[in-house]
Amino acid sequence: MRPVVDILIQKGHHAVVLVPEINWHIKTSQDCEVKFYPVSYTFQERSMEDFVKQVSQEAFEHKTIPQKIQLVYKRLTDESTWLLTSCKTACRYLLQNSTIIQYLEEAMFDAMLSDPVFLCGEIIAEHLSIPSVSFMRGAPFGMEQEASKSPSPPSYVPRIFTTYTDHMNLSQRVKNVLLSLFDFVFCHMLYSPYTRMASEFLKRDVTAVDLFSRASIWLLRYDFVFEFARPTMPNMVFIGGINCVNRKPLAQVIIVCINSSGEHGFVVFSLGSMVSEIPMDKAMDIAEAFRSIPQTVIWRYTGKVPSNLGSNTHLVKWLPQNDLLAHPKARAFITHAGSHGIYEGICNAVPMVMLPLFGDQMDNAKRIESRGAGVTLNVLDMTPEDLINALDSVINKPSYKENIQRLSALHLDRPIHPLDLAVHWVEFVMRHKGAPHLRPAAHDLNWIQYHSLDVFAFLLAVLVTTFFISFKCCTYTCRRCCGRKSRPKSKSKKE
Amino acid sequence: MRPVVDILIQKGHHAVVLVPEINWHIKTSQDCEVKFYPVSYTFQERSMEDFVKQVSQEAFEHKTIPQKIQLVYKRLTDESTWLLTSCKTACRYLLQNSTIIQYLEEAMFDAMLSDPVFLCGEIIAEHLSIPSVSFMRGAPFGMEQEASKSPSPPSYVPRIFTTYTDHMNLSQRVKNVLLSLFDFVFCHMLYSPYTRMASEFLKRDVTAVDLFSRASIWLLRYDFVFEFARPTMPNMVFIGGINCVNRKPLAQVIIVCINSSGEHGFVVFSLGSMVSEIPMDKAMDIAEAFRSIPQTVIWRYTGKVPSNLGSNTHLVKWLPQNDLLAHPKARAFITHAGSHGIYEGICNAVPMVMLPLFGDQMDNAKRIESRGAGVTLNVLDMTPEDLINALDSVINKPSYKENIQRLSALHLDRPIHPLDLAVHWVEFVMRHKGAPHLRPAAHDLNWIQYHSLDVFAFLLAVLVTTFFISFKCCTYTCRRCCGRKSRPKSKSKKE
Repeated sequence: MRPVVDILIQKGHHAVVLVPEINWHIKTSQDCEVKFYPVSYTFQERSMEDFVKQVSQEAFEHKTIPQKIQLVYKRLTDESTWLLTSCKTACRYLLQNSTIIQYLEEAMFDAMLSDPVFLCGEIIAEHLSIPSVSFMRGAPFGMEQEASKSPSPPSYVPRIFTTYTDHMNLSQRVKNVLLSLFDFVFCHMLYSPYTRMASEFLKRDVTAVDLFSRASIWLLRYDFVFEFARPTMPNMVFIGGINCVNRKPLAQVIIVCINSSGEHGFVVFSLGSMVSEIPMDKAMDIAEAFRSIPQTVIWRYTGKVPSNLGSNTHLVKWLPQNDLLAHPKARAFITHAGSHGIYEGICNAVPMVMLPLFGDQMDNAKRIESRGAGVTLNVLDMTPEDLINALDSVINKPSYKENIQRLSALHLDRPIHPLDLAVHWVEFVMRHKGAPHLRPAAHDLNWIQYHSLDVFAFLLAVLVTTFFISFKCCTYTCRRCCGRKSRPKSKSKKE
Repeated sequence: MRPVVDILIQKGHHAVVLVPEINWHIKTSQDCEVKFYPVSYTFQERSMEDFVKQVSQEAFEHKTIPQKIQLVYKRLTDESTWLLTSCKTACRYLLQNSTIIQYLEEAMFDAMLSDPVFLCGEIIAEHLSIPSVSFMRGAPFGMEQEASKSPSPPSYVPRIFTTYTDHMNLSQRVKNVLLSLFDFVFCHMLYSPYTRMASEFLKRDVTAVDLFSRASIWLLRYDFVFEFARPTMPNMVFIGGINCVNRKPLAQVIIVCINSSGEHGFVVFSLGSMVSEIPMDKAMDIAEAFRSIPQTVIWRYTGKVPSNLGSNTHLVKWLPQNDLLAHPKARAFITHAGSHGIYEGICNAVPMVMLPLFGDQMDNAKRIESRGAGVTLNVLDMTPEDLINALDSVINKPSYKENIQRLSALHLDRPIHPLDLAVHWVEFVMRHKGAPHLRPAAHDLNWIQYHSLDVFAFLLAVLVTTFFISFKCCTYTCRRCCGRKSRPKSKSKKE
């Protein structure tokens, strides 16, 4: 979201970023006004570092699909997890902070730009009666589909955590339909604490869908070279790949690293910002694999150095991922398959070896694998040979490079850069106080009306009534006719 | 479509335009290669001028909705109408012309750009195995929705000829659902002669949906300030307003005309290219109304001059509609509500008085009226007073001007001009040999699979079987339990 805000400021807009005092990445900025609000977390002792460690640890535990869903649900709802503390509790502190709320009321903002997944931005926007722009990849359990009234046929739109593609067999479609039937239940369970908080603050009953669906524009980090083609709505703007910007020259120390393997090039390895440590046995397996390949490896890793680390493997605490992938000598990208990394891989046409750990990463990996642009490995079961073979495939089999180059060419061939598109639509919402003409009338229908169930019930009633009356008329007519026929008979008998 | 082809040529592409020798508007061009193919219409004596006269005449006859649908159906299927002769028969001549077909086969085109409504372009593209770009407003009976797999919920997406908005009451929704149920039947009736011709030529059975759905990109002349927001697909590109380009300075004679009414400004009146003559009594009514308004009227009219024509009314055989509407003194636009004219009205923010005559014009008029940017009159029933009042409203009531200005501002506030967008996507299809990543997997499912009916049938079967087995188990257990209970009793009795 940062590059969008930066450009808005460059264009003369005034942006205020609302941040809890205890947060992960956001510090004061020279460019934009950052408004910190105090929080006093009940569970402050469970710091974000603990949370990240816990996530790293949990990622390397074997789990079934229901266990994975349960874990995500726990992470999003359990009061004792840091993520919820940082989002729900922070939101409560914000809503209770009368100084900040008064400031927001008086400042007369034109629009709210937020990732609505934890609803806080939407609650504030609703309170201030200003239009909102939702910036996101997707909400849990397809909430953004329900909220935008975008149809999502379960016959070819795979649900999250299924790792299915858009081509499913009957058994997969059965599971997909069952999951989609439970979307509503999951969403309700997940969002009920937030909606209670929102209803209290707004002093009227609101649902999560109400809050989500007030988005004037959905800036979705989607691109259909990665996502599967599916129905969309006119107020959805696709800005997948918006993060592949601002390339900076590489540091000299990294250039020396890269050049050390000559023509073989190098491999970039990162498991994202949430996982920087991994169990030692796994780290040693990985280091073992890297020793055997001719490429240099640049590995983002903050844990204890594995004793078998090869001379071609360089551990770094942080790496300029997009800049590295943009280097012509980048041969492969080993990633946890987070959507940011995937888009950087696509933008720079680097084939991927994917080690998905949790959340939507399994689905992301499956999407890239189904397009022949990468190999997915199960990080829990993989041996050093599996990793060597996977790297050998993506680096030396031409099909992987060709496929990622094709995806990259399709992705980059766009009439306007996603960053400019995002800025245009935020400004559009500011200029026109929303985008009501892009809002479907489906929002004004209830579930029964939307699916025309009342119409079908009416038509059925008409049909049954018509059939019943016709049947009655026929039987009555038949009886009359038979009666007439039989009466003369009796008459003639009398005669 | 012409401006798109012009820009493609300017960008160095080679475009060949396929035209039957007998045609309406297309003559040889210096810029692009026009390939004429001979036709010898059976019904050549029914010239296009006759057809236009017939259309004009039919437009001024009272008709019910079923009669209107019947008329459209007749126009599209009746072998004796010029429109069909010019499209279906011309297509047959093209497909039978082995010289042209051989030329097309050898020329190795990159893409086919066509309005697919009469399918001929799609048949040729299928034969040549080249990707196609469909350029259109919409196909009869929502065929483009079916072919693009774009969901079209009848609860808020009004069907053609209904003149409903996206907010319908129960009775309107019942009619809309019934019409949508018959879409398939109408389409089948309409397209069966074309699909027979296509199947013969391609030497395999194809349906109209097969041919329509091969479009890689749909360039739809849609904009949601005019159309109602509804589900779309990733391969739909919205280029509504593409025709509002190429403004040229007005001729001196027209400027003199315009300036004659001073500050009152002027009114533009055209019923489109299909209707240039109207019955004399109607023409006199209209002329009568125009005499009473302070504005100058520029009226496109080729019929006999009405005897009561006022001095402020200027009859012209043709008018530069978009250039006139762009003039700051344009106060109102009297139009038949064809989509081209409507977009020119919106682009230039001129409020409209709409006299819809046939086809989708009633629906178009209703859309603009529902947005408070124009007044619809029934041309058959209207009196001079009605027209005077309607003109007075749109010119003097501020709401009409404000609403059309709001629509215009929304319409013109776009990140890229529709013409550039159209050119980009045609070139995209040429560069990448289609856009397969934007094609939904729904195309590979049959109707039952798409709607998950097989899944629901399976789930129902499982449910019924489970229920049946549980019921049997329960009754069996109950019987056993009751049996056991009664047996000890009998035993004790024996004891």
